[in-house]
Amino acid sequence: MKISIIGAGYVGLPLAIAFSKYYHVVCYDVSKERIDQLNKGFDVNKQYSHIEIMKRNLSYTNNDDSLLKTDVFIVTVPTPIDTSQHPDLSMLKKASILVGKYLKKKNTVIYESTTFPGCTTEVCLPLLEKYSNLNFKSDFSIAYSPERVNPGDKVNKLNNITKIVAAEDNKTLNKVDRLYKKICKSTYPVLGINIGESAKIIENVQRDINIALVNELSVLFNKLKIPTNEVLRAAASKWNFHYYKPGLVGGHCIGIDPYYLSYKAEKINYYPQLILSGRRFNENMGNYVAKKTLELLSQNNISLNKAKIAILGFSFKENIPDIRNTKIIQIIEELNNWNVETKIYDSIVFADEVKKTYGLEVQKFSKIKYQKFDAIIFAVSHNEFKTKLSSYNKFFKNQNLKILIDVKNNFSMNDLIKNKYKFFQL
Amino acid sequence: MKISIIGAGYVGLPLAIAFSKYYHVVCYDVSKERIDQLNKGFDVNKQYSHIEIMKRNLSYTNNDDSLLKTDVFIVTVPTPIDTSQHPDLSMLKKASILVGKYLKKKNTVIYESTTFPGCTTEVCLPLLEKYSNLNFKSDFSIAYSPERVNPGDKVNKLNNITKIVAAEDNKTLNKVDRLYKKICKSTYPVLGINIGESAKIIENVQRDINIALVNELSVLFNKLKIPTNEVLRAAASKWNFHYYKPGLVGGHCIGIDPYYLSYKAEKINYYPQLILSGRRFNENMGNYVAKKTLELLSQNNISLNKAKIAILGFSFKENIPDIRNTKIIQIIEELNNWNVETKIYDSIVFADEVKKTYGLEVQKFSKIKYQKFDAIIFAVSHNEFKTKLSSYNKFFKNQNLKILIDVKNNFSMNDLIKNKYKFFQL
Repeated sequence: MKISIIGAGYVGLPLAIAFSKYYHVVCYDVSKERIDQLNKGFDVNKQYSHIEIMKRNLSYTNNDDSLLKTDVFIVTVPTPIDTSQHPDLSMLKKASILVGKYLKKKNTVIYESTTFPGCTTEVCLPLLEKYSNLNFKSDFSIAYSPERVNPGDKVNKLNNITKIVAAEDNKTLNKVDRLYKKICKSTYPVLGINIGESAKIIENVQRDINIALVNELSVLFNKLKIPTNEVLRAAASKWNFHYYKPGLVGGHCIGIDPYYLSYKAEKINYYPQLILSGRRFNENMGNYVAKKTLELLSQNNISLNKAKIAILGFSFKENIPDIRNTKIIQIIEELNNWNVETKIYDSIVFADEVKKTYGLEVQKFSKIKYQKFDAIIFAVSHNEFKTKLSSYNKFFKNQNLKILIDVKNNFSMNDLIKNKYKFFQL
Repeated sequence: MKISIIGAGYVGLPLAIAFSKYYHVVCYDVSKERIDQLNKGFDVNKQYSHIEIMKRNLSYTNNDDSLLKTDVFIVTVPTPIDTSQHPDLSMLKKASILVGKYLKKKNTVIYESTTFPGCTTEVCLPLLEKYSNLNFKSDFSIAYSPERVNPGDKVNKLNNITKIVAAEDNKTLNKVDRLYKKICKSTYPVLGINIGESAKIIENVQRDINIALVNELSVLFNKLKIPTNEVLRAAASKWNFHYYKPGLVGGHCIGIDPYYLSYKAEKINYYPQLILSGRRFNENMGNYVAKKTLELLSQNNISLNKAKIAILGFSFKENIPDIRNTKIIQIIEELNNWNVETKIYDSIVFADEVKKTYGLEVQKFSKIKYQKFDAIIFAVSHNEFKTKLSSYNKFFKNQNLKILIDVKNNFSMNDLIKNKYKFFQL
């Protein structure tokens, strides 16, 4: 059996590597650069090592005709939003058209891309039928198995998780279920692709709103001079409390998916009250961090247009190079609005990618020693930043006025007080 | 040592019984009726049996002078809201005045009542000082240990949970910590009463908003004809999804506490976006259930002003008699607005209390057999209602038109379809 995977990113590559133990796998991507890198054994996302990428039975390609003679297609392309926060289905549609062109009788097409309920059958399926000249059900089958990739998570990897598999009929469901059982710890089969689509999207909606709640609590408790993180830790001593930490919510899942669900809701004239309520709050946390930074500078008589700040971390999440939808941008833009000078340090992201995408300079963390700052913002919890607090002393202009913005609660409050830092913790 | 507990309700009685193993305990309540019942070994809340209530070393009283010679006071009075959803601190203030009158040097006063951050030190403490003519710190100490009573929960009881203890100084914290360690599985000590107050209140805010989210998802998925509960179960196969079920949110905790936190927030000119967002949605779920009921009746050509509906369950939660802030009222009122006749069945609540509080008749569940209905609403998941679906057939007027509103997902969708019910599941 031959499996062709469309999209060789965070979702497609793990599937390709896992399935290649059992089947002949073609891993297809439109990006020639990505395919060239993979063919050399290099994964820019740092998910896999050289040896894992260079498996047998697995070929990386951007050549459409490599999809000939496929039995099972798996579509893993990104589903981002456009500048108006509406679903950008262009890649999903292109992938469906591509698969449609190579689709044959008895094939199965599995979608893994996160999307709104109904998208797979209402948007993708018609394209498959149109470009294949085949009929769904009588000629080919479709299924949905939402990706559960958690970038940077070493525990919850494909082989270690339960994966939802969904189809419109029992025969396909059984087939796809057997397929995924080979590579996952277990599966959760459901009849109805829209159930699978819905289940996936609400996971991130729930996460978004829970983070938004602790972010709002953090803002409120800051005003009340109550240490948020001590409150959250105390609450977490209850058996059914969910311990979320305040923070910036960037990336391509939690910050995106709620817009997909609300898009579908509004299509049927339902205007959600809660689904987007987390979004609104989380979208502004970067500005809030910038504002608290500016406050601290001002309160300590540092003139803003002479202030210089080190920003540690640029990716949207700790220990991964992914810079998509990073909210650090919001902090930087707001600080620059006030003429505060910012320098970014992050050894994990790719500096040229940051330059290309955002027009910003990023330096390796080790370069921080060549400058002196009025304040340091710990924006992302990369391991490289987790050294003891006092090791940062030397990076400040004034040893008697060390301002630290601890977005991710890297340091204990007591330690900050003991070391005579002026600080803000989210 | 003598412990006096002010308030002999859901919170005070378990404490009284637990502490009476180690200390002389006075359990005080302003309600003569409650005290008379407890002295006869009867607990209207059904938390404790006759033998547990009749412990030695434990006296129930509504006589103020029983508080003489107390060493430790524990205040467990209710903190409800008034009709404008503002904190009603009257009972907390009265209890503080009462304790103040009997307070002596070296006493400790522990508050367990849920309240907004700052309330204990800003509202209660001044009353203790005023009515005792003593000084906080030099003469007496205060502490806060938020109650974590979960009515009807047989697992998470006082002896089985971790309890937060909070104080303003280490000496008191150690003392109170040792006290609670005797009766709880473990403690979580924090320095700062406002941390304890905040931790307690956010637990229920988080719960409220999470239930509101699944309620909104239920409304949306109903419009999309997607079975909500199958979606939630599928999502729950992810390692970090929190499985909440849609439902009415009544009672005296989740439906109340967010208003306490928002009250405090607004006092300092912070107008919360998320803290109350769950409230708004949850407050309307009773109307939504009524609306879906009316829709089903109409769609099936039953004229509303001849329709008769059985409502199963009246308390705010399954298997407990507590009717405070029950949202079933909202369902009944809305149905009655449309001239639909309703009959309520619930063998667990006290009918005379329902009559007194709401002016409504409640009958034992067994009485349902004397009537025939157009529809049955399963509003609360009492165990007494959990018999097989077909056993309900005989209660319908028309065997070919059995309408069932399954608020708590008591029945499987397949079972409802197989038994030819017309149904709505939240």
